[in-house]
Amino acid sequence: MHIGEIRAETTKITLFDFDKDRFQEKQIKSVREALPFRDEPSVTWINIDGLHEVEILKDLGDCFGLHPLVMEDILNTENRPKAEDYGNYVFLIANELHYDEKSHEIEKEQISIVFGRNFVLSFQEKEGDVFDPIRDRIRSNKGRVRKMGADYLAYVLLDSIVDNYFVILESLGENIEDLEGTLVSDPSRQSADILHRLKREMISLRRSIWPLREVISGLQRSESPLIQKETGLYLRDVYDHTIQVIDTLESFRDMLSGMLDIYLTSVSNRMNQVMKVLTVIATIFMPLTFIAGVYGMNFKNMPELDWRWSYPLVWLAMLSIAGWMLYSFKKNNWL
Amino acid sequence: MHIGEIRAETTKITLFDFDKDRFQEKQIKSVREALPFRDEPSVTWINIDGLHEVEILKDLGDCFGLHPLVMEDILNTENRPKAEDYGNYVFLIANELHYDEKSHEIEKEQISIVFGRNFVLSFQEKEGDVFDPIRDRIRSNKGRVRKMGADYLAYVLLDSIVDNYFVILESLGENIEDLEGTLVSDPSRQSADILHRLKREMISLRRSIWPLREVISGLQRSESPLIQKETGLYLRDVYDHTIQVIDTLESFRDMLSGMLDIYLTSVSNRMNQVMKVLTVIATIFMPLTFIAGVYGMNFKNMPELDWRWSYPLVWLAMLSIAGWMLYSFKKNNWL
Amino acid sequence: MHIGEIRAETTKITLFDFDKDRFQEKQIKSVREALPFRDEPSVTWINIDGLHEVEILKDLGDCFGLHPLVMEDILNTENRPKAEDYGNYVFLIANELHYDEKSHEIEKEQISIVFGRNFVLSFQEKEGDVFDPIRDRIRSNKGRVRKMGADYLAYVLLDSIVDNYFVILESLGENIEDLEGTLVSDPSRQSADILHRLKREMISLRRSIWPLREVISGLQRSESPLIQKETGLYLRDVYDHTIQVIDTLESFRDMLSGMLDIYLTSVSNRMNQVMKVLTVIATIFMPLTFIAGVYGMNFKNMPELDWRWSYPLVWLAMLSIAGWMLYSFKKNNWL
Amino acid sequence: MHIGEIRAETTKITLFDFDKDRFQEKQIKSVREALPFRDEPSVTWINIDGLHEVEILKDLGDCFGLHPLVMEDILNTENRPKAEDYGNYVFLIANELHYDEKSHEIEKEQISIVFGRNFVLSFQEKEGDVFDPIRDRIRSNKGRVRKMGADYLAYVLLDSIVDNYFVILESLGENIEDLEGTLVSDPSRQSADILHRLKREMISLRRSIWPLREVISGLQRSESPLIQKETGLYLRDVYDHTIQVIDTLESFRDMLSGMLDIYLTSVSNRMNQVMKVLTVIATIFMPLTFIAGVYGMNFKNMPELDWRWSYPLVWLAMLSIAGWMLYSFKKNNWL
Amino acid sequence: MHIGEIRAETTKITLFDFDKDRFQEKQIKSVREALPFRDEPSVTWINIDGLHEVEILKDLGDCFGLHPLVMEDILNTENRPKAEDYGNYVFLIANELHYDEKSHEIEKEQISIVFGRNFVLSFQEKEGDVFDPIRDRIRSNKGRVRKMGADYLAYVLLDSIVDNYFVILESLGENIEDLEGTLVSDPSRQSADILHRLKREMISLRRSIWPLREVISGLQRSESPLIQKETGLYLRDVYDHTIQVIDTLESFRDMLSGMLDIYLTSVSNRMNQVMKVLTVIATIFMPLTFIAGVYGMNFKNMPELDWRWSYPLVWLAMLSIAGWMLYSFKKNNWL
Repeated sequence: MHIGEIRAETTKITLFDFDKDRFQEKQIKSVREALPFRDEPSVTWINIDGLHEVEILKDLGDCFGLHPLVMEDILNTENRPKAEDYGNYVFLIANELHYDEKSHEIEKEQISIVFGRNFVLSFQEKEGDVFDPIRDRIRSNKGRVRKMGADYLAYVLLDSIVDNYFVILESLGENIEDLEGTLVSDPSRQSADILHRLKREMISLRRSIWPLREVISGLQRSESPLIQKETGLYLRDVYDHTIQVIDTLESFRDMLSGMLDIYLTSVSNRMNQVMKVLTVIATIFMPLTFIAGVYGMNFKNMPELDWRWSYPLVWLAMLSIAGWMLYSFKKNNWL
Repeated sequence: MHIGEIRAETTKITLFDFDKDRFQEKQIKSVREALPFRDEPSVTWINIDGLHEVEILKDLGDCFGLHPLVMEDILNTENRPKAEDYGNYVFLIANELHYDEKSHEIEKEQISIVFGRNFVLSFQEKEGDVFDPIRDRIRSNKGRVRKMGADYLAYVLLDSIVDNYFVILESLGENIEDLEGTLVSDPSRQSADILHRLKREMISLRRSIWPLREVISGLQRSESPLIQKETGLYLRDVYDHTIQVIDTLESFRDMLSGMLDIYLTSVSNRMNQVMKVLTVIATIFMPLTFIAGVYGMNFKNMPELDWRWSYPLVWLAMLSIAGWMLYSFKKNNWL
Repeated sequence: MHIGEIRAETTKITLFDFDKDRFQEKQIKSVREALPFRDEPSVTWINIDGLHEVEILKDLGDCFGLHPLVMEDILNTENRPKAEDYGNYVFLIANELHYDEKSHEIEKEQISIVFGRNFVLSFQEKEGDVFDPIRDRIRSNKGRVRKMGADYLAYVLLDSIVDNYFVILESLGENIEDLEGTLVSDPSRQSADILHRLKREMISLRRSIWPLREVISGLQRSESPLIQKETGLYLRDVYDHTIQVIDTLESFRDMLSGMLDIYLTSVSNRMNQVMKVLTVIATIFMPLTFIAGVYGMNFKNMPELDWRWSYPLVWLAMLSIAGWMLYSFKKNNWL
Repeated sequence: MHIGEIRAETTKITLFDFDKDRFQEKQIKSVREALPFRDEPSVTWINIDGLHEVEILKDLGDCFGLHPLVMEDILNTENRPKAEDYGNYVFLIANELHYDEKSHEIEKEQISIVFGRNFVLSFQEKEGDVFDPIRDRIRSNKGRVRKMGADYLAYVLLDSIVDNYFVILESLGENIEDLEGTLVSDPSRQSADILHRLKREMISLRRSIWPLREVISGLQRSESPLIQKETGLYLRDVYDHTIQVIDTLESFRDMLSGMLDIYLTSVSNRMNQVMKVLTVIATIFMPLTFIAGVYGMNFKNMPELDWRWSYPLVWLAMLSIAGWMLYSFKKNNWL
Repeated sequence: MHIGEIRAETTKITLFDFDKDRFQEKQIKSVREALPFRDEPSVTWINIDGLHEVEILKDLGDCFGLHPLVMEDILNTENRPKAEDYGNYVFLIANELHYDEKSHEIEKEQISIVFGRNFVLSFQEKEGDVFDPIRDRIRSNKGRVRKMGADYLAYVLLDSIVDNYFVILESLGENIEDLEGTLVSDPSRQSADILHRLKREMISLRRSIWPLREVISGLQRSESPLIQKETGLYLRDVYDHTIQVIDTLESFRDMLSGMLDIYLTSVSNRMNQVMKVLTVIATIFMPLTFIAGVYGMNFKNMPELDWRWSYPLVWLAMLSIAGWMLYSFKKNNWL
């Protein structure tokens, strides 16, 4: 049973068969077409895009002797990255990530890789393009991929997935730096919302990438005869990259926490600002209004009311009070 | 002695006895009825619902040679999940969880499992339905359960418990997402209360699920001859699921913390909003009231009072002041 | 030298000597009385209440060949729980806790246990009652304690100490739940103080209980010939209990942190409430007072003053303004 | 080169040479005087106070065959505690701490200890008194120090340093408890400053003491033939003390964090209090002032003005409003 | 392909070739000039400043047999510090840091070091001066560098990088102490900004320095025959320094967190101050204004208005009210 969203309309199976000297590329419809390649010594790479046609996948699994638990994990596309050694083959799950620049959302797609002595099977939920450069390398015999075995091809697939993370991190890093600039100059509600959204994205990114570290280190330490010593060196390299991705992610998290602090202190500061305005206004006008109120009283016997200069004198008093208050606010840095 | 709430009225004992070719299902009343099945090579599964009739349980324990400490742990239903290897049998404790959608509360029920070479005993506080699909599988000989041993049956029981966690996590996840939407649009006191309640549920969930990780990994690494190599593969699978549950739980915790931040910033922002309204009102009306107060004074010698256009001029002045203030508030984004 | 408070007036030494078939109980005054029991194969348990009569303790230590460092640790009652294997005997320190319901304070008492092949020495600062049930069990030959060796007796002592923790945790748990109810309904200053006090108690509880985990796991893993294999099973049980105590403690800590959040948000919310009341009052009365002020001005030429219906019209205007403001506050959920 | 403050005016070298039967104490000026003691089997302890006369130290180092890196670490007095095994000798660095009760500051002094088969060298920045009781013990042949080897002497030095930490912790603990009392009764700005200063001191204490744990556990686990088995027991003891110091330090940190929470909640509460006073005043006087304003208007046609009892009635109305408001504030617990 | 900023205009290659007795220094243009030195037993150190002339580097790599992954890591200057043992040579990456006192920014430069039995290659992005003292030491045969092998030279390079960190930490420490003084005396917005910037710098520093710890401890534990036992001692020394750098960094982080707390409490305190001023003003003037308003009412029948002493009596009443309020504020410590 396929668990997860259906993302591709039809299942597309692409077969590559190559060795040092020759290669063959084929769009196939059923597993029967793949059978003859299985038993040849050349490396066979079968890539499947779309996972809802369960029957085809089942046939493929039977053909390559996959354990029912493996098939279940391939079809349930909400697994955590992991690596499992089944003796005749090694089973890997990793997540490919897509970052939608517009909606600021990160989409996750499960990629399952199975590799044995001379075959690699890769399962994607929908047709993607992370593997295109690898196809080109096979076609043009560039790099080492044609010269080495199935384990190296599996490494190359994993490496292209991890390299893609760097692209996403770069976009995220730019967004974070933009946001930081905005937060300092104008700490609006909107910035806080983006901040919280970025934090959430970090949580989901971490869940995809963190377990990959153990996966690759597990592969490295594994004593499977399927992984050649030379490939171990390359795995160390992709392990380093994963650590670097995780490091960057952690600094992003730290930076976002720091930015939340910036936001909150700026909200407090603005509150302070508002309160100061209110206090300045109230402190200046309340005494003045009181004075005006006093001379608005209707007592018969109020000698000041009849004096000639009392009105201008009251104005003078009121202006002095206001002036003195403004001066003392200035001195206390409230203006 | 039974420690914990009494949840079932009578103790119900269900016996399954099966091998590849045949199976038998029986409701039994006393342990004596189970005795003949104990020594046969077929797998015997005895499920007990209700733990307060201590005598029956004691008989059962004696019959299968359980250690007094095991019996004590079965009867005290407030244990932490754990796995212990007693040589002739392995003893497991796990928690089944029920999520009450209405009261938003998670109820915990201890399930104890004991399995030996050819028997499995499972103890539940009350009759539940997580094991029903397993019973169906045994009856209809679906899947692998009839073909494999007691250790596989124990795995299947454990797996059905862990699978049930995903259902609860899904409900919780939906609640959390609903709450997040609510918090952004209307950060009321009620939302904060739900938030705190969800946080508390997380704490109790964690206590139930976290130790399960060690339990299963302990089983995997155990060298008990009771656990066959093939079952080890399946344990790895249920281990992966447990890790996934824990991962999800941790992201939920992170999300809830993030939501508390959202709530607090929104409370601060609303306070800011209220203060701004107050400040705008006070800043506009205090000077105006002061002016009105000045011309309400009763000095004899106030030439303005007698001028023809002074009243409309004062109005003009007051309106200009109010207009200018509104304009400067607008400019400072306070309105 | 005895370091710590003196808590008992006289040192009280109680001696139990037992094997499967017989037992002897004796109140003794000097170590000489204990000597004959030392070299017999039956288990001898000497319990000392009160630690300030250093000479008696020193004699006892010499009699059982205790290392000077052990004697020092027994007398200094501010040690951390620990377990040390001295070859001929094992030395344990644990803390017994007493919870004073009235003052909400947790009192700590150090209990030192030394056990060898056929003796157990236990040192308490003052006469307590945690060990009473054990004495009863020895007297009445209930349970396994008379049938097994000195190591089992030491386990039983340790177990009764850990069981006592559950009692304290239960009281604390009830206090915490009471407080939570209070905090939601009436978040007063007093609740916050109790909250902070409970937090402090958690810190001190943790210091007493946390190291016990390592102590017991150390005993379990120790290869001392003094600890029989059968006793190892029981140690695993008391280890599980300790973990459960620590788990509960950690959830209490998490719950208290959550409650501090509840308290702080409720303080913020009430501040918001107060500010809203102020703002509503000011926003309604400031414009009205301004209007009244305007018509209190003494300009000669104010035609409105002479109009017949102006006074009721002003009232109408003021009531409309107040009504409109109340309506818009209602609409914004400020009332 | 000597890195660090110069704290002693002249370098003072004190030599102790002892075995079970005799001892010799000597103030020496140059290393030449120490030479004859080096090759004798009795234990030689050379204590150096003051580190700026680099030449003397260099001679000493050469005489006892110290590695240049050791000499560098002795002279640079800003090292982290560490223990290094150089085969012929073991090199230790620890920090002695002094707590200045007046300025509430903790001063740090590096103490380097080198011990070989029959010698101990100790280097202090300035003459101190932590080692005085040890000197007395050697002189009067009290305790075990004269009977055992150089490794035991090194342990005794380390132990006296760690014991000194307890004195400092006690002073700090008293300060923290004083502060807690003050914070609850009068949460002033000054208390917050002391709080922050104590937090800073904790950070620096932790840096000095934390690594000591690894140092001593490293010594314990070391298989250097220089450390006899018997001394290992004593090292376990000083290790326990270090753990206890670290534990206490951690609880102090937790308590200080809790106290910061207390302070912040009390600041919030006082703000609430201030706001309530303001709101009560404004809510009572604004309506009253408005009423007074209404009857201060100068409309010709205001029938109330001419009524006989209207003035006392207005007073009555105003007092009723004020009374009703006070009553409703009382009911809402605002007063 | 070179990934990263281009920081040097031309690639500059400096060759040192030395043994105990003689040394040679040479500015070279192509790798061909280096070839004759490669196979001699004397130590050859080739330092490359500037990484964008990829061809030259490639030639060098081929000449010394470097793995393509090593070349890739050298050219991609955004790697994390790491150490890898390739059998014939060991490959190290570290970050040199520059602290710009003016902009308060820390610049990072990747330094790659490759060392084999008798050669060391070091790659810098631009010409720096951290290695100058080492060049002097080689030229003047000071210290041990000429007497020991390539591994010692590599250690010396690493050591000079780590020593440079102390310089940066010192500048940072001074900045932090300055800021702390400022925050206590004048907690302005600017200080908060510097605080947040320092926090960010800590995050990036940590990313550079933290992994170095594992790098050096990896080298220490490595069993590569290229690292002589004597050099292991020196590596332990540079490891200690790295730990000390990390320790200092962690205390800086703790101090910055403490300072954020100081800032926030001082913002709260100032808000409290502002609110108190407002409340004092409002509480004094609102009742007075109300009284003045009462006697400004125009009721016909207001007997007080006609009394002789009523005006001075009202003044007296108002002054008493104000005085009493000031006194009670004083008593409550609000002034």
